[in-house]
Amino acid sequence: MSQSQKPAAHDASRRRFLKSSLQTTGAAALGLSTNVHGYTAKEVQDFYVDGEMQRNVSKWELDTPALCVDLDVLDTNIDTMQSTTSRNGIASRPHAKTHKCPVIAQRQLDTGSVGICTAKVGEAEVMFDHGIDQILMTTTNVTPTKIKRAMELSRANPQFIQATDSMTNARLLSDAAQSYGITADVVVDVDPGGHRTGITPGEPALGLAQLIDSLPGLNLRGLLCYDGGSQHVQGFTARRDQTLGRLEAATATYDLFQSSGLSTEIFSGGGTGTYNIDHNTRGLTDVQVGSYVFMDAQYIDIGGETDDEVYSDFGPSLTILTTVLNDQYEGRCTTDAGAKACTINRPWPRVKGEHGMSYTSGSDEFGSLRYEADASRTYRVGEKLELIVSHCDPVVNLYNHMYAIRGETVEAVWPIAARGMST
Amino acid sequence: MSQSQKPAAHDASRRRFLKSSLQTTGAAALGLSTNVHGYTAKEVQDFYVDGEMQRNVSKWELDTPALCVDLDVLDTNIDTMQSTTSRNGIASRPHAKTHKCPVIAQRQLDTGSVGICTAKVGEAEVMFDHGIDQILMTTTNVTPTKIKRAMELSRANPQFIQATDSMTNARLLSDAAQSYGITADVVVDVDPGGHRTGITPGEPALGLAQLIDSLPGLNLRGLLCYDGGSQHVQGFTARRDQTLGRLEAATATYDLFQSSGLSTEIFSGGGTGTYNIDHNTRGLTDVQVGSYVFMDAQYIDIGGETDDEVYSDFGPSLTILTTVLNDQYEGRCTTDAGAKACTINRPWPRVKGEHGMSYTSGSDEFGSLRYEADASRTYRVGEKLELIVSHCDPVVNLYNHMYAIRGETVEAVWPIAARGMST
Repeated sequence: MSQSQKPAAHDASRRRFLKSSLQTTGAAALGLSTNVHGYTAKEVQDFYVDGEMQRNVSKWELDTPALCVDLDVLDTNIDTMQSTTSRNGIASRPHAKTHKCPVIAQRQLDTGSVGICTAKVGEAEVMFDHGIDQILMTTTNVTPTKIKRAMELSRANPQFIQATDSMTNARLLSDAAQSYGITADVVVDVDPGGHRTGITPGEPALGLAQLIDSLPGLNLRGLLCYDGGSQHVQGFTARRDQTLGRLEAATATYDLFQSSGLSTEIFSGGGTGTYNIDHNTRGLTDVQVGSYVFMDAQYIDIGGETDDEVYSDFGPSLTILTTVLNDQYEGRCTTDAGAKACTINRPWPRVKGEHGMSYTSGSDEFGSLRYEADASRTYRVGEKLELIVSHCDPVVNLYNHMYAIRGETVEAVWPIAARGMST
Repeated sequence: MSQSQKPAAHDASRRRFLKSSLQTTGAAALGLSTNVHGYTAKEVQDFYVDGEMQRNVSKWELDTPALCVDLDVLDTNIDTMQSTTSRNGIASRPHAKTHKCPVIAQRQLDTGSVGICTAKVGEAEVMFDHGIDQILMTTTNVTPTKIKRAMELSRANPQFIQATDSMTNARLLSDAAQSYGITADVVVDVDPGGHRTGITPGEPALGLAQLIDSLPGLNLRGLLCYDGGSQHVQGFTARRDQTLGRLEAATATYDLFQSSGLSTEIFSGGGTGTYNIDHNTRGLTDVQVGSYVFMDAQYIDIGGETDDEVYSDFGPSLTILTTVLNDQYEGRCTTDAGAKACTINRPWPRVKGEHGMSYTSGSDEFGSLRYEADASRTYRVGEKLELIVSHCDPVVNLYNHMYAIRGETVEAVWPIAARGMST
C-alpha cells in the first residue's frame, strides 16, 4: 500500500514519527542546495585507510545511489535490543542475512549477542573469514557441495552450528562429519506451521533429535523454530497472540527433548517483530533478530506495543541517498534510484524528514517522486534526498558497501562482504 | 498475476510454448535424480582458464542458486534480432543495462549491432574497461561527480555519447568538456510522454538541440526517445498502435532537427516489445533492445505478432538453477532461491519444462513450489530445477557471474562485470 492510500490517521501518526524521531538535519532539511561537489565511490573508498577517513566527506558529497547507515541510530537500535532482551532474560543471536556485514556482526557480538545467525553457508564462510566464530546457520545443507562446504567450515571453526530438518539429512551429515574426522554441531529446525522449512514439532522432531544424538560425528545442541509468518502481523496484540500460539508446539518439543535427556542448550527463534514477546515462549534461549539494526518501511507499519500505528522501538538507520535527474514535469521529479537500488518491495521507500510526497521505485533505473498538495518541499535537478528503505534485507544485498555516517559525515566505508552470497 | 490466476486458454497456450520451444532435456526432465555430486562456485571458476573449461562440468553439478544462460538460445535470440532489424532497415543498439556483461556486449557488436547503450556511467566505464567503445549512455549526468566521470570517459573514449535533457545541463556539459579540453558527443533525450526523463518534444527539444549545436565542447549527434511505457503492453496490435502514436511527436522533433540543419545521425528508441514495430517510426535509426537476449516471464506474457497470448519471437535463455531444501509437506516443496536470487517481480518465475506447478520467491531466502493436480512431476530434497526468470534486468543485477551453458555443459563463466553499477 503506498503512503497516499493510507488512512489519514495512520498517515498523521507515521508522519509525526518520521518528523520527530528521525531528527533529520542536513542540507536537504535546511533547504540548502545539495548540488555540491562530490566524490566518486572509488575516491571515498581510497580516503578510508586503516579504519580512518583521511578526508572530511559529507554524506551529501557521495555519488548516488548510495547506501548509508546512521551510526547513532544503529548503535541505539543495538542498545535497545540488548537492554530489552537482557531485561527479559533472553539472549540475542542476530541474523547476519540482514546486514551481510562483518563490521556490524562484530558490533553485535561486542555488545552482548551470544552469536550470529546466517541463512547460507556462503554467508557463514564470509563471516568466519572476517573473524566471526559464533555462527548458527539456520538453513539445512542438503547437497553434497553444500555439506562439503559446511563440514570444511566446521573443521576450521568448531563453533559453527548448522540446522537439519530430516533424518536423511542427519545421516548425510553424520557420514560427512566422520569422513572429515570431526564432530559437527547441529540443531533441529522445527516448523512453526508455515511448512517452509523444518520438521514437524512433537514426535517427528524428537525422533530426529534422538537419531542425531545417536549418530557418530554429530553433536546435538538443541532446536530452532523461526516464526517468520508472525513477524509482520499488524498490531502488537495480534502479533503476540499469533506467535505465542504458534510456538506452543515448539515448547512442547523442547519439553520432549528435555524429558528425553537431549540437549536444549539452544532453543532459538523470534525476530524483530516479536523480540519483546519471545521471552514468553517458555524455554526459548535467544532471538534471531535481524532487521532491528536497520528497520524499514515494512516494519514501521506493523505497529508497536505503545503505538498501534507505528513501530517506533527501533529507528530507521538505513537509507538510500539518491539524486534528482529530471524536475521539468509538474508535480513530480525523477531520481537515480529505481528497482536496482531500492528493490520493488512494498511499502515503497519513504523520503526521510519530509511529508506530502510519495516515492516509487518500480522502474529498474529510475525512482519517481510525486508531490501531494501539502508537500513539505520540492526538489531541483542535482539535489539529493534520502530514502528510508522498504525492506532492508534485499536492499542491502544490492550494494557492495555501505557508508557509515555520524551526523552528516562519512566515518567509515563498510564492505557488505557477504553480498550476493545466496549459495 | 500468478500462473494459477490466469485464464485456462492463456495457460494452455503458454504451457504449449514452454513445453515445445524450450526443448528441455536434462536430468530433471528425464526424471533422473539431480542430487549429483557437484562443485562450488569457486571450483567452477577455477576450472575456467584462458576462456576454456578445464573440466567437463554439467549444469546440474553447479552449486545453487546459479544464474545460467543457454548459449544456443542466446545466439538464436541475437540472430533473430539482427536479421529482423536488418530486414526492416533499422539498426540495433542493445541496452547493456540488461546483461551488464561485457562478453555479451561484444557478442552483440560482433554480430552487427552499431553500439550498446548503458543506463549509468558506471556501466559505461566497466564496458569501456572491457574493450567496448561504441557506448551511448541514455541517462543524463547531472551532478559534478557524474559529469566528471562522463568527461573522463569521453576523453579516454571519443566514441562515448551521453544524453542530455535540459539547457542547464547542456551548459554544464559544455563547461566541463571545455575544462577537459575535449569535444563530448551528446544526444537530446526526448520524453515520449511518460514524463520520467527527457525534454518535451517539439520546440523545447529543438531549442535544446540548437543550444547544444552552438555550445563549445559539445557535438550534437541526434536524439533518443525511449518509449518504455509501451514495451509491455499486452497484445501486438495494441502495443503497435500505442508506440507508433507516442513516437509521432519524436518524429516531428526529428523533422524539426532536420529542417534546422541539426544532426539526426542518431534517432534511437524502441525496445524488445516493439523491435518489429519501431522501423515504422519515420526517422528512427536504431532500437535500444535489451531483454531480447534473455527474455523473461514478463515478456512472454505480452503476446507476439503471431500469437496474441505468448511472445515467442525470442526464447528464454536465462534461468536460475535452484535446489529443493524441504519436501516433507504435502503439495509443496521449498527451494534455495528466494527474493535475493529471483527478485519479487511478477509474474513469478516459471519452472522450465514442467507444468502444473507454481513458484513464488516472496521469501528473502526461500522459494516455494506448489503442485497443482496435473503437476508434471514432484521433487525430492537435493534435486535441482530450473526457473525462467521473472524480469531479467534486476535478476542479473543480483549475481556476480553467469554460467554459459551449451546443451547441459558449462562452457564458460561470464563475469557480470557491471553488476551493482547503479552509480
